[in-house]
Amino acid sequence: MKKIGSGTYRLANPVDITAQEAIVGKIEKEGPLGKYFTNYSEDEYFGEETFEKAESRMQKEVLNRVLEQSKASPKPIDFVFAGDLLNQCIGSNYSIRDLNMQFFGLYGACSTMAEAITLACMAIDGGFAERSIAMTSSHFCSAERQFRFPLEYGSQRPPAAQWTVTGSGCLLLETGKVGSGCPKVTEICPGAICDMGISDQNNMGAAMAAAAELTIKRFLDDTKSSPEDYDLIVTGDLGHIGHSILVELLAKDNIQAGSNFDDCGKMIFDKNSQDTHSGGSGCGCSATVLAGYILPEMKKGTLKNVLFIATGALMSPVSTLQNESIPGIAHLIHITA
Amino acid sequence: MKKIGSGTYRLANPVDITAQEAIVGKIEKEGPLGKYFTNYSEDEYFGEETFEKAESRMQKEVLNRVLEQSKASPKPIDFVFAGDLLNQCIGSNYSIRDLNMQFFGLYGACSTMAEAITLACMAIDGGFAERSIAMTSSHFCSAERQFRFPLEYGSQRPPAAQWTVTGSGCLLLETGKVGSGCPKVTEICPGAICDMGISDQNNMGAAMAAAAELTIKRFLDDTKSSPEDYDLIVTGDLGHIGHSILVELLAKDNIQAGSNFDDCGKMIFDKNSQDTHSGGSGCGCSATVLAGYILPEMKKGTLKNVLFIATGALMSPVSTLQNESIPGIAHLIHITA
Repeated sequence: MKKIGSGTYRLANPVDITAQEAIVGKIEKEGPLGKYFTNYSEDEYFGEETFEKAESRMQKEVLNRVLEQSKASPKPIDFVFAGDLLNQCIGSNYSIRDLNMQFFGLYGACSTMAEAITLACMAIDGGFAERSIAMTSSHFCSAERQFRFPLEYGSQRPPAAQWTVTGSGCLLLETGKVGSGCPKVTEICPGAICDMGISDQNNMGAAMAAAAELTIKRFLDDTKSSPEDYDLIVTGDLGHIGHSILVELLAKDNIQAGSNFDDCGKMIFDKNSQDTHSGGSGCGCSATVLAGYILPEMKKGTLKNVLFIATGALMSPVSTLQNESIPGIAHLIHITA
Repeated sequence: MKKIGSGTYRLANPVDITAQEAIVGKIEKEGPLGKYFTNYSEDEYFGEETFEKAESRMQKEVLNRVLEQSKASPKPIDFVFAGDLLNQCIGSNYSIRDLNMQFFGLYGACSTMAEAITLACMAIDGGFAERSIAMTSSHFCSAERQFRFPLEYGSQRPPAAQWTVTGSGCLLLETGKVGSGCPKVTEICPGAICDMGISDQNNMGAAMAAAAELTIKRFLDDTKSSPEDYDLIVTGDLGHIGHSILVELLAKDNIQAGSNFDDCGKMIFDKNSQDTHSGGSGCGCSATVLAGYILPEMKKGTLKNVLFIATGALMSPVSTLQNESIPGIAHLIHITA
């Protein structure tokens, strides 16, 4: 590992992403990336009795598929890094409780997928692990009742509101194998908390945009690279409004966000035909777009050089009621084909 | 780093704990370790308006004290690893939001202090960081209303219930400096989830005991050491009942838990004079006992060789209502003077 600039880390040996799986719900399947999501359920309960158990079920599904693929090598999986949006991260805790795997529970809100990948890469590049799992999930129904209102209320949603993605993504990360042809993590840039004073929990994209700006700017400065060097610079779940704010903020830094800038929350739903307002959100948003679309496209060679910046809003319903603003965070992963 | 056995990691260079700070509330100050807790508040709000903000305030206090000591060296602090019991970990998110430090949010329930130390050591030993912070907190009043009932109800507590410690602990971990005289982390053994089917959320110690057994047995097997090799083998917050169960479980493994076995939850309150039932619990329990008592005693030379095993119960009030059992986890840190 080599530290570059103020806080970017170039891995000594790129970490291979040797397996990736995504699962989504019905409306994600109906969205623009639907054809990439081969694993989905029409039933929002995923065969379980509650939305929370459904969330764990999704994680179990993608984890089992990844574990199945991991059997191609006899090496054990050293660590699992996982977390989710549910209070006390029960989505993750219950999905892996029967597996007897050494586990690190994370909470990074919707930035959790990038946080998990970052820590898995640090464990692997630092020599502590040969193979690690990074996983997260979110569920529209469990998130609505936990963060906003029970669905039965039929609450009106303002235009800035985002739609929590029902889905889960899981990656297997391994020490680099020459010629394996897998996408590789080459650099990581962990995020710092950034609070712009925004307190509207129906406008999370705005609250997270400055955190994304902070991390993207840091990474570009540290690596002395420019946006044109990448095929795709994709944030996690800023949505339409947050993405516009990010573009404006970057312009003030003299960073021109061109057509290679996108956002998983914008990509996963169709703004015109799906009633999802400012776009997708939730840990599962960036995780499923990464595992279901971006990484498979990198394997095909369509995308070669990607910056993945998952963004998280670190408030709670209690902090919002106590008039606190919403702190944001964004962790960046540089992936090359 | 050298992996030993099934999952213990011996650091290539022991990581120094160069600063540690604890803060506690009134009844912790009145307990058996009171004379060690020089930093405390009679006011359960710690000067803030709500219990949640009080929890963040405690973290800010210990963090600022550690940062003050860190100025002895001009090196920057690379990462903060922190988490707490509050939904969405707002205790930690709000305590560090103004510091512009690269941050990893964790959720390991009451095992969070050991999880944070483990990941900080991995980051340092793996070459990603020279200095990192590990921090956590809990607050009796915020935990009661979040996990059980608002205090205003005056609910009766069963004998197996534990008393969430009001307190916060913070450590500064650094790459080893020869002759610095600080306690050093030499080995780590991350935990796996263990679920014994216990579903009584007023008996957390019982739910976590098997996780502690699993990790302690793994570590002793991996290192081919025996309990007599250590001055103190201290679990996080099993309390009186959980500790007795752990002793029984270890006896079945032919591990005799002698007088060097103890538990932070047993140590922090006086069973006879303080109405705390089965003992202390919460992330702040093991964090304050470690930072306030164990590490200072190691600096004095009273304790030389310590296994610190923080234990976490990974359920939520929602999972309990949905008839789920309580998964436990325990991460082990080997510290030598």
